[in-house]
Amino acid sequence: MSNPSLLILPGDGIGPEVMAEVKRVIDWFGDKRGLAFDVSEDLVGGAAYDAHGTPLTDETMAKAQEVDAVLLGAVGGPKYDNLDFSVKPERGLLRLRKEMDLFSNLRPAQCFDALADFSSLKREVVAGLDIVIVRELTSGIYFGEPRGIIKEGNERVGINTQRYTESEIDRVARSAFELARKRGNKVCSMEKANVMESGILWREVVQKVHDEDYPDVELSHMYADAGAMQLCRWPKQFDVIVTDNLFGDLLSDAAAMLTGSLGMLPSASLGAPMANGRPKALYEPVHGSAPDIAGQGKANPIACILSFAMALRYSFDQGDEAKRIETAVEKVLADGLRTADLIGEEGVEPVSTRQMGDAILAAL
Amino acid sequence: MSNPSLLILPGDGIGPEVMAEVKRVIDWFGDKRGLAFDVSEDLVGGAAYDAHGTPLTDETMAKAQEVDAVLLGAVGGPKYDNLDFSVKPERGLLRLRKEMDLFSNLRPAQCFDALADFSSLKREVVAGLDIVIVRELTSGIYFGEPRGIIKEGNERVGINTQRYTESEIDRVARSAFELARKRGNKVCSMEKANVMESGILWREVVQKVHDEDYPDVELSHMYADAGAMQLCRWPKQFDVIVTDNLFGDLLSDAAAMLTGSLGMLPSASLGAPMANGRPKALYEPVHGSAPDIAGQGKANPIACILSFAMALRYSFDQGDEAKRIETAVEKVLADGLRTADLIGEEGVEPVSTRQMGDAILAAL
Ligand SMILES: CC(C)[C@H](C(=O)O)[C@@H](O)C(=O)O
Ligand SMILES: CC(C)[C@H](C(=O)O)[C@@H](O)C(=O)O
Repeated sequence: MSNPSLLILPGDGIGPEVMAEVKRVIDWFGDKRGLAFDVSEDLVGGAAYDAHGTPLTDETMAKAQEVDAVLLGAVGGPKYDNLDFSVKPERGLLRLRKEMDLFSNLRPAQCFDALADFSSLKREVVAGLDIVIVRELTSGIYFGEPRGIIKEGNERVGINTQRYTESEIDRVARSAFELARKRGNKVCSMEKANVMESGILWREVVQKVHDEDYPDVELSHMYADAGAMQLCRWPKQFDVIVTDNLFGDLLSDAAAMLTGSLGMLPSASLGAPMANGRPKALYEPVHGSAPDIAGQGKANPIACILSFAMALRYSFDQGDEAKRIETAVEKVLADGLRTADLIGEEGVEPVSTRQMGDAILAAL
Repeated sequence: MSNPSLLILPGDGIGPEVMAEVKRVIDWFGDKRGLAFDVSEDLVGGAAYDAHGTPLTDETMAKAQEVDAVLLGAVGGPKYDNLDFSVKPERGLLRLRKEMDLFSNLRPAQCFDALADFSSLKREVVAGLDIVIVRELTSGIYFGEPRGIIKEGNERVGINTQRYTESEIDRVARSAFELARKRGNKVCSMEKANVMESGILWREVVQKVHDEDYPDVELSHMYADAGAMQLCRWPKQFDVIVTDNLFGDLLSDAAAMLTGSLGMLPSASLGAPMANGRPKALYEPVHGSAPDIAGQGKANPIACILSFAMALRYSFDQGDEAKRIETAVEKVLADGLRTADLIGEEGVEPVSTRQMGDAILAAL
């Protein structure tokens, strides 16, 4: 049997730096745990645009469709701000999500105990926090037509369309309920059903999926603005939150920041099962490309390394090996190692991206 | 000369209770400061639906167009959750905003010193916080067509449309720059120009208004998800934030909650000047109708009273009298008076809505 395959797309900004550490972790699993992967690497985002004039070539797209899992670093940067919309770095990532049909984006917002004091929230509000935001990732206003900037009379109008079909809502709701069953068995669904018809349909379908197939899971509904408030007030009231693409973008970023552990948080974007039974999957850190610190060896590689741990768990059914990485990360943090983003108090010397990678390898 | 006119719309939930205290404050200004208003009162939201089968009658709408300012309590409640979309309580409020063309919604997120410890954020992150979110209020996905739930093939699709014209963006940008000039002279504009064309147009028009007419104001742009993060991390980096209707809904609620002073925060929704030079205007608290505590005399009337102070400032050019109210509120808080929503520590006895009103009147 051949090895499972991984496509690595480091992308822009700090992407390549943090991915370099992930590659060492992957190699370690091949050498030490007999878990070898066929790894290929390619360009995405601004890096792909610089080389090919497009943020994702058709060849890379085709490769992504064939491998068992994609690992992505980050895309974007001010250098590309004035590019035409159609070739912006982000379009490369959005094309991957859309064409691989990765409808369920799991974004854990977890507070690492060693870092609780680093949050802008009070310790008691975040210590022990462990929630997951399930964000719909292939539809909604990110992809709906019509869209664009058109001329109407003598002025321009910017247009985007939020569209959700029943089946799109149904499948992401199911993934949230399935996840909740493995966790705290509680789902809160967020929309703006008080002002948007797409929110009314969202609420109705989530409720129906619940009543028909997941009556054992506790379900509540919240308007997304109230949800944003409650996340800031007392995030521990939640277990799994399910929401649409745009609300999920804002709410998961806010939640991630609140943990104080932004540089630590991985994400998984999952689609339907492939012929081999594995889901289509892309793993990436929640943080962005951080152009301000790129190339300086300051970035925190942990979110990207934990994204590989999520790949082990969700794509390769290696929950124990995933746990091995997570435990190593906790140990390193408990030992007091901090990259620059995790330095709150004075007097602590930050370690470099590479040193953090070294320490995690040693802890493994 | 006749007195300036006010239309009071208490609405639902705690709306009537908190508005009762505002009415006493209004009377006080008539008696003690020679500032008399012609006050009329009417129904909005669920209360209007119960009486007339619509959340806002044409008569009330016409009155709102004629008066100098509207004061609104809150709308909505679980009792109305299953009403048809077209008669939901929220539609009454949205109709007022739309037909009065109240495009600029000022939402201060201010941390009252006496309440800084009540925030879920650390004291140093919020103490002294004083920012304003300027939310576009009459366009965007709240009002764009096409919208609705339609049948396509054999499933239903929920549709909403984000639409922004250049002139809609232009006017709200101007109101943000004008406001910034009276404050910290800094504006941050938030959108998702990396994924939405309406965001591209937004960014471009805001920049153009700045370069042409407000080059003295410091302008920055941020993606709305990064904005949500930054609000949670270090809100004091902002002065004025300008953003669209939907992002403004979430971001202003999150910001309000972070201050720990949610029950304290007023808002002003302003339109174009009327024949008498005053802007069309509606004032309402940021908090909602809080159906869970309605009718119990527990609600905090301060946000609604401060909304009247905003009316004095923005509609009636009575900044000094507005300050008088604000000072009275600060005094009462410094004296230790707390309604139930402001009780963090044990051992403090909450005062009722009425008692809080009494104390503010006494302090005036
Ligand atoms: C980079 C950008 C296109 C992306 C998004 O908006 O989805 C990012 O913010 C994210 O959350 O993954
Ligand atoms: C009540 C509701 C329609 C409203 C909104 O979504 O605008 C509210 O949340 C607000 O922010 O004023």
